[in-house]
Amino acid sequence: MSNEIILVTGGMRSGKSRFAEQLLADRERKVYIATAEVLDDEMRARVAAHRARRGDGWQTVETATDLAGALKQVAAIEDGGVLIDCLTMWLNNLFMENGGDLDDKTAEKEFDKLMDAAGKFPGTVVMVLNQVGDGIVPVNRMARRFCDISGKCGQFAASYADRVYLVTCGIPMRLK
Amino acid sequence: MSNEIILVTGGMRSGKSRFAEQLLADRERKVYIATAEVLDDEMRARVAAHRARRGDGWQTVETATDLAGALKQVAAIEDGGVLIDCLTMWLNNLFMENGGDLDDKTAEKEFDKLMDAAGKFPGTVVMVLNQVGDGIVPVNRMARRFCDISGKCGQFAASYADRVYLVTCGIPMRLK
Amino acid sequence: MSNEIILVTGGMRSGKSRFAEQLLADRERKVYIATAEVLDDEMRARVAAHRARRGDGWQTVETATDLAGALKQVAAIEDGGVLIDCLTMWLNNLFMENGGDLDDKTAEKEFDKLMDAAGKFPGTVVMVLNQVGDGIVPVNRMARRFCDISGKCGQFAASYADRVYLVTCGIPMRLK
Repeated sequence: MSNEIILVTGGMRSGKSRFAEQLLADRERKVYIATAEVLDDEMRARVAAHRARRGDGWQTVETATDLAGALKQVAAIEDGGVLIDCLTMWLNNLFMENGGDLDDKTAEKEFDKLMDAAGKFPGTVVMVLNQVGDGIVPVNRMARRFCDISGKCGQFAASYADRVYLVTCGIPMRLK
Repeated sequence: MSNEIILVTGGMRSGKSRFAEQLLADRERKVYIATAEVLDDEMRARVAAHRARRGDGWQTVETATDLAGALKQVAAIEDGGVLIDCLTMWLNNLFMENGGDLDDKTAEKEFDKLMDAAGKFPGTVVMVLNQVGDGIVPVNRMARRFCDISGKCGQFAASYADRVYLVTCGIPMRLK
Repeated sequence: MSNEIILVTGGMRSGKSRFAEQLLADRERKVYIATAEVLDDEMRARVAAHRARRGDGWQTVETATDLAGALKQVAAIEDGGVLIDCLTMWLNNLFMENGGDLDDKTAEKEFDKLMDAAGKFPGTVVMVLNQVGDGIVPVNRMARRFCDISGKCGQFAASYADRVYLVTCGIPMRLK
């Protein structure tokens, strides 16, 4: 099966995950790579809501930071569609693992590893990323660094992607 | 007169209210449903600036939380255009009324009531909504909940709307 | 040479500066008007990264608040392309100079001065502006005022501009 990489971006609760799921709706085999770590009730509720909406037919693989490894693991057993939901939580986990920051070099290495694995995946890879940089510049330095790295990740992923969508109020706009 | 629902969204000071007003400019009868409660000088100045820009020809109805009621009230006497400015302030007022949160069930009930009234309105209903979810995820839980509910409201309203516009730097992009 | 004004907007790290530079890539004479004041290491690193990416072929003019003056100065010696990077930092500097606020009247005077100088510039003027108003409404009053003034600046510049682009994940969308 041919390889395709799709980036879906949008703000919080813009409907980007739902749209990303729909892109893979007709695939026989669907894998959901979840990056959210359930650490509190709020996250538990959010994960449960996403899971209920997706319904059956999805296999779930969980990883906090090793997206490349998860893609390789899935590639060995699947040839359908993979949804990575989401890059933002992945970046957040990398930040936490690195003591609240992620220098540009390390970030680029991580992006390279991810896009390399995505490029080799024998099927469609849909990646979801939050838009986080359209508000007022955060006072907090860590938040500014996060906006930097997230924006960089978005540019990087978009340059590799075959298609890019921006979702607003549940409506996708195709950017590429 | 046929019914039409239009959603206009965009960031703070993106020009969305001005564009929303223009959509109704040629209507003979125009009603402005104001949801902002004037509690301080900043809000007073903002309301005065909006009012001055709209100019004459608008009838104003004020409601903090009962948009459905306001629409019904207006429907009895008007057949022109109604501008709801804005859903964001309405959601904020509902939050305040409910002690700083709005659970998903209550929110959905409110959305249903609003869209039901809008769907029955014998004319054009233009609704304005702020984009609030494209910044860094807020540290404050109430702010996160607000982003959730606002995003949900945007998706809900957009799914009912006949037309949806995103305004950036005063320029509307039609999304639907 | 004919005059053209181009506005490039987008969130933090959306790739707007890079795209703005590319718009002028084939000009023989290129001037970069830098508004960032280097006050700490973070800013020093950011400025160095921008400078390294632009490469040679750019003349740099620095001004914190006098964009109109910088444009006039450049107009006397150049007929190529000018990149103002960025209006957001310029507004921020005006805020700081005015004690943390900028009343609407003063802001409008500054916008007029800038657009007048840009309109008279014998070549292409590209202006970069951050989208800052698509997050949750800031608690801080100064941040709210900044969103107001920035949004107003965006509407003003867009109304004068011959072309307007919104950049997301490095991908430009033409709005005008």
